[in-house]
Amino acid sequence: MSLPVPTMEAPPVGVVGLGQLGGSLAAALVAAGRDVRGWDVDPAAREAAAARGVRVTRELGGVVVLAVPLPAMAAALDGLDVDPAATVTDLGSVKVPVLGSVGAALGGRFVGGHPMAGTERSGHAATDPELFRGARWALCLEPGTELPRWLRAAEVALDAGAEVVPVTAAEHDDAVAAVSHVPHLLAAALAAAAGSAGPLALALAAGSFRDGTRVIGSDPAFVTAMVEGNAGPTAAALARVLAQLERPWPELVSAGHGVRSAQAGEGAGRRAVRVPLDRAALLSLGRAGGAVTRRLAAFVEGWVPEG
Amino acid sequence: MSLPVPTMEAPPVGVVGLGQLGGSLAAALVAAGRDVRGWDVDPAAREAAAARGVRVTRELGGVVVLAVPLPAMAAALDGLDVDPAATVTDLGSVKVPVLGSVGAALGGRFVGGHPMAGTERSGHAATDPELFRGARWALCLEPGTELPRWLRAAEVALDAGAEVVPVTAAEHDDAVAAVSHVPHLLAAALAAAAGSAGPLALALAAGSFRDGTRVIGSDPAFVTAMVEGNAGPTAAALARVLAQLERPWPELVSAGHGVRSAQAGEGAGRRAVRVPLDRAALLSLGRAGGAVTRRLAAFVEGWVPEG
Repeated sequence: MSLPVPTMEAPPVGVVGLGQLGGSLAAALVAAGRDVRGWDVDPAAREAAAARGVRVTRELGGVVVLAVPLPAMAAALDGLDVDPAATVTDLGSVKVPVLGSVGAALGGRFVGGHPMAGTERSGHAATDPELFRGARWALCLEPGTELPRWLRAAEVALDAGAEVVPVTAAEHDDAVAAVSHVPHLLAAALAAAAGSAGPLALALAAGSFRDGTRVIGSDPAFVTAMVEGNAGPTAAALARVLAQLERPWPELVSAGHGVRSAQAGEGAGRRAVRVPLDRAALLSLGRAGGAVTRRLAAFVEGWVPEG
Repeated sequence: MSLPVPTMEAPPVGVVGLGQLGGSLAAALVAAGRDVRGWDVDPAAREAAAARGVRVTRELGGVVVLAVPLPAMAAALDGLDVDPAATVTDLGSVKVPVLGSVGAALGGRFVGGHPMAGTERSGHAATDPELFRGARWALCLEPGTELPRWLRAAEVALDAGAEVVPVTAAEHDDAVAAVSHVPHLLAAALAAAAGSAGPLALALAAGSFRDGTRVIGSDPAFVTAMVEGNAGPTAAALARVLAQLERPWPELVSAGHGVRSAQAGEGAGRRAVRVPLDRAALLSLGRAGGAVTRRLAAFVEGWVPEG
């Protein structure tokens, strides 16, 4: 057995956009001892970040994280002075469109990312350095992605307390359509239909309605950009949900309960694995439902679900 | 101005079924100083209730509360010694079918009820005397319901910390189809569809999936009995949700967000009202989205939403 070989010193991180996600990431990385710089068009967000130890500057390098809303992604670096050797990653909730815009401009230097975290709140006042603790963070490994850059982006996610799920952009967009974008549409439809049912129905609304509609409390512009930005996979995933609703109710209830129970019990059965620094091996880990928890010099450590 | 005239001394309460709902109600009423008796077919549930100050006996009178699952409702009083003058109420999640079975046998002595409380847990170990605090409690006022018995049942709900919503059984079943039963079906369909999408999708599932599927963590037999027991209104409410899903997404998201935001902000605008002890006036209060918070001798106090 040999001791792990330390990797090169961690590069600085530059966070563009210091709202809930970017501000939380910057704060988490400051806490983890990283050199964190950042910028936001909003002076109040810059001030809040500076108070948390972020060096506010337009000069960014190392790993640059785009933490801006999807519609602002393509122009996020405009007016900033970014090291042309920097690795660029993002936190956007869809990946194929971002790969097509930012990724097309940056080539192998771009690593698409998406932390499965965040709440219905937004803005720098909703910053929480623990936001990513234990969350899954999808990180795209396209055929053209430079693996050393992918690993640098992965270190950022790991330093924020997340677990990294290697995916392709297309796989990611299909998966989040099913587990995130369709839930937003269902919540909207449920709320809108109950609203039209009148005051008595809303007066009787309790836990199942509150839970089933919580995500539609999010900023509608954000939700619309998300579902429209992933329209194809979201429409396909919605069709699969509608097909489930055609099943006899006892069968539907039983199937849904089974998935939910298995999901709620996850973490009980995890098997530790080591994965070589190889695209195919990393993507296999993600497809098996696993995640990377630590980067070492010659491999990563992680886990896959048991059974 | 005259001081309120005290009502007659509160009668004993007999709780049949001491699981999560019945056990919690019994505990809440003991805490409120009521004389509480109870029975359960399960000796462990009886023991747990006795430890909370409930007098365990088959001899019940005053206001008898049926806190058993829907399929057991019609036979809930079998083997018990119930005062033939007792008022009988229930906690079942659908009201027209219970009115047709228990109500048909008991006539004006039966007052259908449904507290909008409970969690995905069940059984006497999930008992919580605060379960009903601040919850809405639908209480049916049919043309044949004897108003003094309705008021006795209302006192039980109020003593448990709930607010009473006067409804007809049919109005109740339509309303809960929209805000409770359809959410259960949507949660089941969402979970089942995500399950078939594979391990990567479930690995990326985060807050929106957890919230959107939480209620389907409930006992499937309970959920199935609920939706099948309210099949007509639930199918109609589901069709209304499906119609919402046909709208353009930006419009759908905006409509859903509007209802959710108004709902989340409720309580901000409430106007206090006094309602005479009259069926039509009480039902109007419920239809306006209001609730009863206190019973006095000649009227009830409550509130309606402002605006």
